Amino acid sequence: MAEPVVIGARASVDHVFTVDDVTSFARLSGDDNPIHLTSEAARAAGFQRPVVHGVLVISLLSQLLGTRLPGPGTILLGQTLRFRRPVYPGEHLQATVEVTGVREDKPVITLRTWVESDEIVVDGEATVLVRDLAAG
Amino acid sequence: MAEPVVIGARASVDHVFTVDDVTSFARLSGDDNPIHLTSEAARAAGFQRPVVHGVLVISLLSQLLGTRLPGPGTILLGQTLRFRRPVYPGEHLQATVEVTGVREDKPVITLRTWVESDEIVVDGEATVLVRDLAAG
Repeated sequence: MAEPVVIGARASVDHVFTVDDVTSFARLSGDDNPIHLTSEAARAAGFQRPVVHGVLVISLLSQLLGTRLPGPGTILLGQTLRFRRPVYPGEHLQATVEVTGVREDKPVITLRTWVESDEIVVDGEATVLVRDLAAG
Repeated sequence: MAEPVVIGARASVDHVFTVDDVTSFARLSGDDNPIHLTSEAARAAGFQRPVVHGVLVISLLSQLLGTRLPGPGTILLGQTLRFRRPVYPGEHLQATVEVTGVREDKPVITLRTWVESDEIVVDGEATVLVRDLAAG
């Protein structure tokens, strides 16, 4: 369900990625970097255990942009991302997008975007174009 | 196989995403924005047909960073992305990363990153930290 696109509007989603999700995504994307797949490689790189792919984590942001705020008809134009700490399978994540700018001359929206667990794990900004689906 | 990390070094990978990949990723990520799944929604948004998720396209860049250049031990710190045009299932894509900066004081590398088909579809920059896996 799309929310009204006004400055300060927010949408959030909660999600937990499993070990199986990470394995499936490694196969799907071809990103089989061993820090995502084996405890040995993860520990050698300084992590406690295998790490969820960053792009899988930020798919929560695309999901919010494309289905909730601004919602269907949203086309991602640009994105900046800072990966602040690794995310592990089983962590309870909450992703949020918040409208920070609405252009008057064209349907271009900017949003602050972040994913948090006990602290912020990824943050950044997204710029999107919103097409009016009803206008065909 | 990791490549030498020097300015100008490049690594590329070719890939074609299928309709099944897009459907699988919609399920895996929860991003079921209809522009990825139905011809009607895609056309209503001004596309020829359903569009590959942007995060799936950029997973080719993470794959290169984490497996080829800089390679295993790479941790993504930050990324900027410009999505220049939609990508459709079946398109032949080539993703490339090129080293543009190597810090002398710490193992932080910057790379230009892009994905092209007949033209550039996504471009941007990535900043990564490289941990020495052998050092434990």
